[in-house]
Amino acid sequence: MDVDIGNALASVASPGVSREALDRLDEQVADAHERIEQGMANADHGYEALNLPERTDPDAIRATVDPLTDAGALVTIGIGGSSLGAATIVDALSSDTETVFLDNVDPEWVTAHLDRLPLEDTAINVVSRSGTTAETLANFLVAREAFESAGVDWTERTIVTTGESGPLRDLADRHDLPSLKVPDGVPGRFSALSAVGMVAAAVCDHDLDALLEGAAAEAETLTGSLYECPAYAYGATTYALDARGAGMNAMVPYAESLETYSEWFAQLWAESLGKDDLGQTPLRALGVTDQHSQLQLYRAGPRDKVVTFVRPTETADRSIPETEVDDLAYLGDASLGDLLAAEFEATEASLAAAGRPNVRVEIDRVDEYELGGLLYGMEAACVLAGELYGVNTFEQPAVEWAKKATRGLLGGGEFAEADAVAEKTELRVEQ
Amino acid sequence: MDVDIGNALASVASPGVSREALDRLDEQVADAHERIEQGMANADHGYEALNLPERTDPDAIRATVDPLTDAGALVTIGIGGSSLGAATIVDALSSDTETVFLDNVDPEWVTAHLDRLPLEDTAINVVSRSGTTAETLANFLVAREAFESAGVDWTERTIVTTGESGPLRDLADRHDLPSLKVPDGVPGRFSALSAVGMVAAAVCDHDLDALLEGAAAEAETLTGSLYECPAYAYGATTYALDARGAGMNAMVPYAESLETYSEWFAQLWAESLGKDDLGQTPLRALGVTDQHSQLQLYRAGPRDKVVTFVRPTETADRSIPETEVDDLAYLGDASLGDLLAAEFEATEASLAAAGRPNVRVEIDRVDEYELGGLLYGMEAACVLAGELYGVNTFEQPAVEWAKKATRGLLGGGEFAEADAVAEKTELRVEQ
Repeated sequence: MDVDIGNALASVASPGVSREALDRLDEQVADAHERIEQGMANADHGYEALNLPERTDPDAIRATVDPLTDAGALVTIGIGGSSLGAATIVDALSSDTETVFLDNVDPEWVTAHLDRLPLEDTAINVVSRSGTTAETLANFLVAREAFESAGVDWTERTIVTTGESGPLRDLADRHDLPSLKVPDGVPGRFSALSAVGMVAAAVCDHDLDALLEGAAAEAETLTGSLYECPAYAYGATTYALDARGAGMNAMVPYAESLETYSEWFAQLWAESLGKDDLGQTPLRALGVTDQHSQLQLYRAGPRDKVVTFVRPTETADRSIPETEVDDLAYLGDASLGDLLAAEFEATEASLAAAGRPNVRVEIDRVDEYELGGLLYGMEAACVLAGELYGVNTFEQPAVEWAKKATRGLLGGGEFAEADAVAEKTELRVEQ
Repeated sequence: MDVDIGNALASVASPGVSREALDRLDEQVADAHERIEQGMANADHGYEALNLPERTDPDAIRATVDPLTDAGALVTIGIGGSSLGAATIVDALSSDTETVFLDNVDPEWVTAHLDRLPLEDTAINVVSRSGTTAETLANFLVAREAFESAGVDWTERTIVTTGESGPLRDLADRHDLPSLKVPDGVPGRFSALSAVGMVAAAVCDHDLDALLEGAAAEAETLTGSLYECPAYAYGATTYALDARGAGMNAMVPYAESLETYSEWFAQLWAESLGKDDLGQTPLRALGVTDQHSQLQLYRAGPRDKVVTFVRPTETADRSIPETEVDDLAYLGDASLGDLLAAEFEATEASLAAAGRPNVRVEIDRVDEYELGGLLYGMEAACVLAGELYGVNTFEQPAVEWAKKATRGLLGGGEFAEADAVAEKTELRVEQ
């Protein structure tokens, strides 16, 4: 990926970063890069994620999923980091295999999917490192039952990706299911480029090698200066803008196929950096659609956000037919691609003209190679930002409270958190 | 809808609102309500939206769409307020009619939809007040051509919703197309309960009367006190929290069917209140999914947001099969609905325990009546918040710059904004 931070400079925007501040920040980047390199060399928890381009074995993934590559539909059962990486890849690329992600426990929605899918032609991709994630295991138990009711042997149609031990590993062993291992030292939100994210891509026949090669090429750019490394330029600039008041980061791809990528980024950014009362809040938006929804706020609301555009420079195109209406004649000389490109440039410039900071991230096109680079680049940007904030990028302790309370409420043990739920303060205004 | 602001009180959360502050705010609410009532009585621009439950004629909508109710698929071509209300309604409710919203000009994505749909069985619902919206007209021209290429007479399959004059009105007249009028005085983002939002619902055979009745019942609650009106309780509380540092409002429905509702809310909130350097930034999230993505940030990041839960109290359910795994046995005593409910309560309590403000909005279930109430209630909340901020709730001037620049870039006239695009400040870091 290429990154252009020109519209984040203090000469353009407020908040903005001066050239001098960037130069000072670059010294911190050099130190942070040393820690990151060391962490990678030691395969330390989290930093190991940045080694995935060379650690992931695409042949092993392909061989494991091989019996199921003829499936017409693939249901991935996972949540958070066990779902979003895979969803990002398959939603970005096109395939004849229908992909469904059961990443919620809404009963009506789960039932609608299971009722609709041709189960005899559907494969299951169940993903949970611990093998005990409540939502994932509940959905898997429900899906298994649906397959059985339909007279389909789920043990013939299930791929498991999980840790070295736990209920899912036991199950895979017991039924001799094709299975892969969640890599050690890699938090879920950083695992798109491992089996966690790539099983679905393999079933859909996407090019795993190109995904990893694109990521590896991005890894090559990691150096001690933000001026030489796109990922670090992005991580350092967004960090500096947050410190200057841009507490939000709106991720705005100009491609429908990258809508899920924004969800993936939102988890990466929120869960990695949102701690110790710090962290930038990710916003998800989409060009051009959200020009008619969020642009008013981005351009004229509080000066509390940076907008990140992600733009593939090459796309397929389609011409707009001529029209006899004078007021619309200009459209007939253009294509949808021209319109998309003009709207992108216009929106970017409209923010700059209003002094609102924005960053442009460019990829050549939406394919496996470029996507691998984008995912890796954003992960590296996030790791760098975590170093600059001084937070523990790879943990998410704040989610434990609700997990314990949920378990307690369902009778899965005694937890003080569950008791606290009943003590809610109410001030109800009813219809 | 019912609203519980207990977890937004200063005794629970920081930022939070004290009882005394709420009492003082209630005097402003009384004044604002008088202005709103007056605006409604005068059918003033914008306020007229709150009269829609009695102004919209469901019979006229049903009669107009009648020739196309047998369509297997409906493509709505519109963007922003011309799309999100309709999408919210049809995505919340189930129907045998497939619905597609062409609300972007991504060439590959538009082509994929048009290639995939059975055009001889597909109806078009084109929506633009001015009849000149670039994205909508470009997509309509492209769709017309696709129908022609497929040998399908688009004039037999198109419904138009537009203003009293303009290119789309002329076209509807020329081809004698079934058409409806965008109501006067109602900005797009407030038009879900007019023909703009309800044509798609009518084609899908949803109960328009119930939608309007639910909205009318909510309208009955508008009184001069936040303690008596759920909509005002919501609008006043979120305003007060913003003033105390919660510059973001995360909308988190605990129902997959309400995911699009969050997009609708995000436009309503952003475009109405995001001006004069003011306004709360809407975040879109989804329970339980985003507990594994955004909850870490919401609970442990900066104290700069309020979380709004929307919860249907009745849902369909599905039991979770028993499992022999000890660690998961508690799931086998529960249903997916139990799990969803426990996760909702646990997440709400986990934020309260961390002193993070949150508000609970309850509806009885996701059906036409309750949805009408929710949409109307949030519109009224937004209008009240606009009064409290003192902004012009019903305009969106900041989007004009980019529209002019786009037009200029495409050769549709001379615009200084287009020239400014070329002057971009660059600081590129390339791979």
